[in-house]
Formats: sequence, C-alpha cells, structure tokens
Amino acid sequence: MSQATIGLIGLGTMGAALALNIADHGFDIAVWNRTTNVTRDFHASAGQLAARITPTETLEALVEAIAEPRAIILMVPAGQAVDDQIAALRPLLGPDDLIIDAGNANFHDTNRRSRDGSGPFLGIGVSGGEEGARHGPAIMGGGQRADWNRVAPILTAIAAKFDDTPCANWMGEEGAGHFVKAVHNGIEYADMQMIAEIYGILRDGMGYGPDQVAKVFNRWNDGPLQSYLVEISGKVAGAADKETGKPLLEVIVDAAGQKGTGRWTAIEAQHLAAPIPCIEAAVVARNLSSRRDARADGERLFGAGPVPMGDAAPTEDALENALICGKILCYAQGYEMIAAASEQYGWSLDLPTIARTWRAGCIIRSAMLDDMATALAEGGNRNLMFAPHFTKRIQKSHAALRQVVATGVAHGVALPALGAGLAYFDAMRTARGTANMIQGQRDFFGLHGFERFDGRKDQHGPWAD
Amino acid sequence: MSQATIGLIGLGTMGAALALNIADHGFDIAVWNRTTNVTRDFHASAGQLAARITPTETLEALVEAIAEPRAIILMVPAGQAVDDQIAALRPLLGPDDLIIDAGNANFHDTNRRSRDGSGPFLGIGVSGGEEGARHGPAIMGGGQRADWNRVAPILTAIAAKFDDTPCANWMGEEGAGHFVKAVHNGIEYADMQMIAEIYGILRDGMGYGPDQVAKVFNRWNDGPLQSYLVEISGKVAGAADKETGKPLLEVIVDAAGQKGTGRWTAIEAQHLAAPIPCIEAAVVARNLSSRRDARADGERLFGAGPVPMGDAAPTEDALENALICGKILCYAQGYEMIAAASEQYGWSLDLPTIARTWRAGCIIRSAMLDDMATALAEGGNRNLMFAPHFTKRIQKSHAALRQVVATGVAHGVALPALGAGLAYFDAMRTARGTANMIQGQRDFFGLHGFERFDGRKDQHGPWAD
Repeated sequence: MSQATIGLIGLGTMGAALALNIADHGFDIAVWNRTTNVTRDFHASAGQLAARITPTETLEALVEAIAEPRAIILMVPAGQAVDDQIAALRPLLGPDDLIIDAGNANFHDTNRRSRDGSGPFLGIGVSGGEEGARHGPAIMGGGQRADWNRVAPILTAIAAKFDDTPCANWMGEEGAGHFVKAVHNGIEYADMQMIAEIYGILRDGMGYGPDQVAKVFNRWNDGPLQSYLVEISGKVAGAADKETGKPLLEVIVDAAGQKGTGRWTAIEAQHLAAPIPCIEAAVVARNLSSRRDARADGERLFGAGPVPMGDAAPTEDALENALICGKILCYAQGYEMIAAASEQYGWSLDLPTIARTWRAGCIIRSAMLDDMATALAEGGNRNLMFAPHFTKRIQKSHAALRQVVATGVAHGVALPALGAGLAYFDAMRTARGTANMIQGQRDFFGLHGFERFDGRKDQHGPWAD
Repeated sequence: MSQATIGLIGLGTMGAALALNIADHGFDIAVWNRTTNVTRDFHASAGQLAARITPTETLEALVEAIAEPRAIILMVPAGQAVDDQIAALRPLLGPDDLIIDAGNANFHDTNRRSRDGSGPFLGIGVSGGEEGARHGPAIMGGGQRADWNRVAPILTAIAAKFDDTPCANWMGEEGAGHFVKAVHNGIEYADMQMIAEIYGILRDGMGYGPDQVAKVFNRWNDGPLQSYLVEISGKVAGAADKETGKPLLEVIVDAAGQKGTGRWTAIEAQHLAAPIPCIEAAVVARNLSSRRDARADGERLFGAGPVPMGDAAPTEDALENALICGKILCYAQGYEMIAAASEQYGWSLDLPTIARTWRAGCIIRSAMLDDMATALAEGGNRNLMFAPHFTKRIQKSHAALRQVVATGVAHGVALPALGAGLAYFDAMRTARGTANMIQGQRDFFGLHGFERFDGRKDQHGPWAD
C-alpha cells in the first residue's frame, strides 16, 4: 500500500471538510481523530473519496501512513489543544516533517510555536467556514517560505479560485498567516456592521420592509458592492421564517454574538498603534446589541431611537455610495494595520498579495478586492485612500457618505461604523487639525513639550517659566 | 535619632515632590536614590523640610532609618525597574514591612506583584503630575485593605482635598488602584479630545480666534463644565508665544504625543468586552494627528477639511451642552469598564468612591465628578445614563450634542469622540436595533444560530435545511 501525501489530525466539522477537499483534488490523505469512532464514521461516509483516505487509529499509525518528509495538518481547537497535539506528535516525526496548524490560532501562539525550534511549522489561516473548507477556502500561510512551498501544490489545489488563480498564498514569516486572518475577521465585523447600519436607515429612516431591503441589497450585488456579504444580506432580508411565514428579520432578536475575533483585532491594532476605528466601532456595536434591557430603558428615558426621515431620506444611490466609501475607508485602515505589523514583526507582508488572497473563498470576498489588489500594487503599499483608483472612488462617494451620516445623526439612527469612517476621512483630509490644543494642554499640566511650526521641538508655553 | 515614619525610593521629579509633600505634612521620611548625589542635592535643597528628611546612601541604611513595621514607597520607572527594586529591597525587610509602588505600573504587573507572596504590597495610582505630587495628588490605592489602612493617615494627609475630604481612597484588591488610574487616563484622553473637537468647531466652523476661544472656555469654567481641563484650555487658548507674541495655539504643531496610557485602557476594555468608544476615538485621533504629511495629501485630494458653518453654526450654549452630554456619556463608559473589571477580577470597586477620589488633585477633576459620586451612589452602580440626576442632564443636553455632531459632519469638522458618544447614546436608546441582520448573516455563513423573539435560542434560517 502506498503512503499518503499528507496527514490530518482532527475530524471535526472543519477538519473533515478540509480532508474531503484534499482527497477530492486527488491527494492521498491519512487522517486521525482522538476518538476513533469519529475517524471510522468519517471514512465510512466519504463515499467515492474513501479510497484516497487512510483512516488511522493511533498517532503512530498516522505517522507511518504518510510519505516522508511528512506534512501533517492540525485542525483542533485553538489554544492548549494545539500545544498538546504538537507535543504528542513531534517525538514521532523526523526532523524534516512539517506540522501545519490550520485552526484559528492567535498569531502570538503561532509566533511562539514557529520559534520553539522543535521542527518545521506553518500556521495557516483558513477562511470560509465549512463550505469553504470543503469546496475552496482562502488560505493565508505563515512560516518559512520553503516550508510553504513544500505544501503549496496541495494548498493551492484545494483553495478557492478567482479567475483560475488560487486564493492560497504565503503571507510572511511565523504567525503572519494567522495575523492576516485576524485582520480579515476584523474587516468582516466592520463590513457586516456597515451593512446593518444601512439596513437601519432603510428600515427605520425610510420605512422599507424586509422585501424592499432585500431588493436593494440584491441590486447592489450586481454593482460595485458585489460581495458575498451583500449577497447574503439580500438573502437574509428576503428569507421567510419556516414556522410563521413572517420575514425572518422580524423573527431574529437584535442581539449579536461574537466569538472574540473582532476583539483580538482591536487589541492588536492598539499594540501596533494602528488606527482601525471602523472595526472598533463594529466591536462596540456588537457589545451594545446584547444589552437589550438597557436599550429598552434608554428608549423609554431618551425617546424612541430613529425617527422617520421623510423628505430628508437619502436616495438608494446615495446609500450605495456611502457604503462604498465606508467600505474603502475600513479596508484602508485594515491594510495599514497589516503594514504596521509587517514592520513591527519584520515580516514580508505584501498588501496586493493579501488582497488577491481575499478575492474568493473567504467571508469578505468581493469584486472590490480585485481592484484593491491592483491599486495597492500601483500605490506602493501606501494607504488605500492614496492609491489613485481608490482616490477617485472616494472622490465620487464621500459626499454621499457625509450626507448619509449627517442625515442618520439628525434622525437618531445609530451609525457608529459609518460615522467612524467619516471621522477618519475628515481627520485624514484636514491638514491643520486641532491637536495643537491637546499639545498645549499636555504641556500645561505635565510639561510634555510641543513642537513649534518653526521646527523646534520640546518647547513650552509661558507656564513653564 | 528617632526613626522615620516612612521611606521613599526614587527621587526623580515625582518622587522628590512626593517626599517633600510627606515631610510638609509633618511626617519624618527617609529617602534613598540609586545615585547618591541626587539624594544629597535633594536634601540640600529641601530648605525647612530638610529636618524631617533622612537622606540615606545605601538601601540597608534606608531600611534601618525607618520605624518598624516599615512602609516604603517606590517611585521608580514602571516595569523591570520596579521588579529589580523589590528584589533588592525585600531581603532586607521584615515579614510585616510594606512596599508601596506609587509609579505608573500596568495593573497586571501590580496583580502579579500582589500575588507573589514575598510580603505586603500596595500599588497606588498617583495622579496630578509634579504639582499634584508636591501639593496634593489624587491617590487610588490597591492591595489588601489592612495594608492600605496602615498608611492611610499619611496618604490622606498628603492628598488633594475636595471640601476637606481627602482624594485618597482604597479602590480594591491587587492592581485595582493602578487599574482605576488607567481608566482615569483613558477618560482624560477623551475629555481632552472632546474639548479639542469643540475648539475645531469654534476655530474652523465659526471663525473664532484664540482669544474668542479662550473667552468661551473661561466662561464655561464658571458653569457645569467647571473642570481643570476646561480651565487650562482657556489658558492655553489665551496664551501668547513668548518669542513672537502670536497666540500660542498658532505656534504649536497639531500633532499630539502619547505615552501609551490611553492605548492600555483601550486594550483592557477589549479584554473586558466593555465598550469605551469615546476613549477609543480619542486614541485614534492622537494617532492620526501625527500623520501630518498624509493629512496634507488628503486635503489636496479630497478638499479642504472643515468649511465655515455660517448660519448653520451652533450657538455657544449648544456647544456647551454638547460637551456636557459627550462628557457624561464618556464617563458612563469609563465607569462601566470599571464595573466590568470589578466583576472580572473579583475586586470591590465602588464607583461612588472612585468618583469622589477624582474630584480633586487629578487631571480630570471637575465639579461634575461630585454630582457623579452622589448619582452613582443613588443609582446603585448602574450605567451613569440611568442615574436619575444624569438622566435629566442628558435629557436636557442630547439634542445639542445631536445638532453639533450633525452640523460638524455636514461641514467636514472631524468629531470622532463626540460622534462616537452620540452613536453610543443612539445605540443605547434604540430598543430595536439592527443586529438581527448581523445574526442572520452569521447564521447564513457559519450556522452560528440566533435567538428568536419567541425566546427559543440556537435557531437557524431556511438555509440550514
């Protein structure tokens, strides 16, 4: 019996889907799960693909089933389970055998595991949920480039394709892959929140029912906003509850859950001093959504939330342009955060490659990402706002964002992420800001010093005498 | 020769000021500095107070100079220097001798040092800069309450007083004092940023010169906004440059520095899942202020920042009320973060005590804090928005905040913190939010499940079939 090309540990939802995807692309794969019955059931239900899958019942058997130098994917819960699995596995391996953590690791853990000297290690961010894992995820690789190259034939084969180009790329060293995945997740939060805010204007400001909302998102999905999230927003708005027949949006409680991935991104952005206000606002919005009792008290004490906009309502085109502009600004922040990490950690992160990787397979996939890949390559890794193609798009859309935020603010629609995007934009186009006041205050109370316009630094006001 | 009541290590600016303050209040204090000349110079320049100060030239001499059980204040740079100093000092001490870290420690370090079992330890947050340390700081104590009680006579004597009540209190166990100080610093960022935003409206939207700005802040400092930061903002705006005679605000570069304290607060808030959008916005604003070249490019590409407001300009009263409302909302967020930490860490943090402690001595001291102490005591530690006194103040002022933000947005004045405050307010008074859309999206792409209004949880949309 010939040996498998690759191994996989952990046959939960994601691991099983990834294993089938690998087998489906013609690679022989050996699999192992802590609970043997899971392995047996998985193999038994693999149908035609079973022939390419070698189920094993011990770690030793798994290792023996894989051709040397081995490559073994871990798809176990992030955290201690990964360390435990590596500790159990590494002694069975040769010095060239490669462990690939494909779970949702915190990139700091991946950094540590990459540096522990125990053997070749890759951390890969896999995006797209179960569906993606089975039929084509986006894959963000981190570790030694040579190690990535060894498994690239498999990972690019199973990845999502955008115009035949695989969305699987090496991002950079150590935890770079998991880091890029974290930023992806943060952008996902902001993308979703901005869509929800537009939904709020349509519903509460303009009186649109779910069907009308669905039509708007469906139409936008044929234009510049074409994206998985706009597409499914149309489907969510258009869906009916199976039991009551009511629009599904009227059945779902307005309290959003979170698994903490947006929070991670916000924390890392603070460590990097990289401003990502749209993502921070989205994390805040999810937190506040869970406070249903307090929000009801607030409505009782401070007046009902949004009021109808009447003639002041923006047009659907203005809303579309506002969402376009907000989205560009949010991505500009995300890419800047990645650039800051690349510098901080000495990684080789390439923004155009990242944008290309996100074009298919992942949750934030969109038509705009293809343009971003081009624009970032032309723009020399500068802030996306200053890449000429997106400068033009912002020039065409910022007035709409301003109008929508101003109207929302005036009518009590909470627009934290779109509003934060606009505040970021306004700060970034104000050559003369107001931080001179802050510097004056800081010098007054703490003699922190300020720079003068004549170029001299560490100067003080008259109170210093 | 009688022994000193307390000792102090580290005669930098803050340590020297604190030592003089202690001596000034009639306590005998022994001091030591790593560099002996610093100790000698300090003692030589202490004037009348020199008699109460025992300069020592070795750590052993310092310890011997203090009456048992000893209490020794460390005022050395936060971080490794504190650990090194503790390691050097502890072997010389008896089991009941108390070490008090009065520096700017990260509260996680204070937690660790409190738990290391090496001996009694307090971490105290000291706010108010050199002036405060010398003549009356706000002191936020953390550690064992019994240890606090031992030194409370000294710490309350040297602290700032509000109506004769000392602004020195035990906050809670372990790092609670340094934690509360960190939140104080975060609020300070937001307070300063909101003042700067109002300054931006006055300057760019309404064409006020620095003198007119000064008059506005000076007048507000006699009303509900009475506070150290509003007071010094008036002084900063009214100050003239010594060299050129020009208004100082026109000489200072609009790029704000930061020592990272606001960032710490934002990170801890994320860990606690406590939304503090006003503080996050203030941290972002400081980051963006340093990008002067990018902002100039932005102005060139996207049009000059703020445009004159003309007849749309808010009245000075509206601006005052907007700042009042924004400030209340910012503090509501800060107190909620403290309440979240108290629960997370099992501390005994009491919000009214904290508000009382901040009433004098520290940078954010204000008349409003006295009302907050009363309101939080009456409000049973709920969100400040729902404490009746502040509910009324928000009811009177939120329309002004809305008008000011809407006008600022329409005219291109960046109002990140005030805007974030309003978005928070609107979210908190919207009983029916828009997170149902987010939950629908999450269920669509990841089968995360949602709650239905009929109370059933973990439900799915039709796509799950």
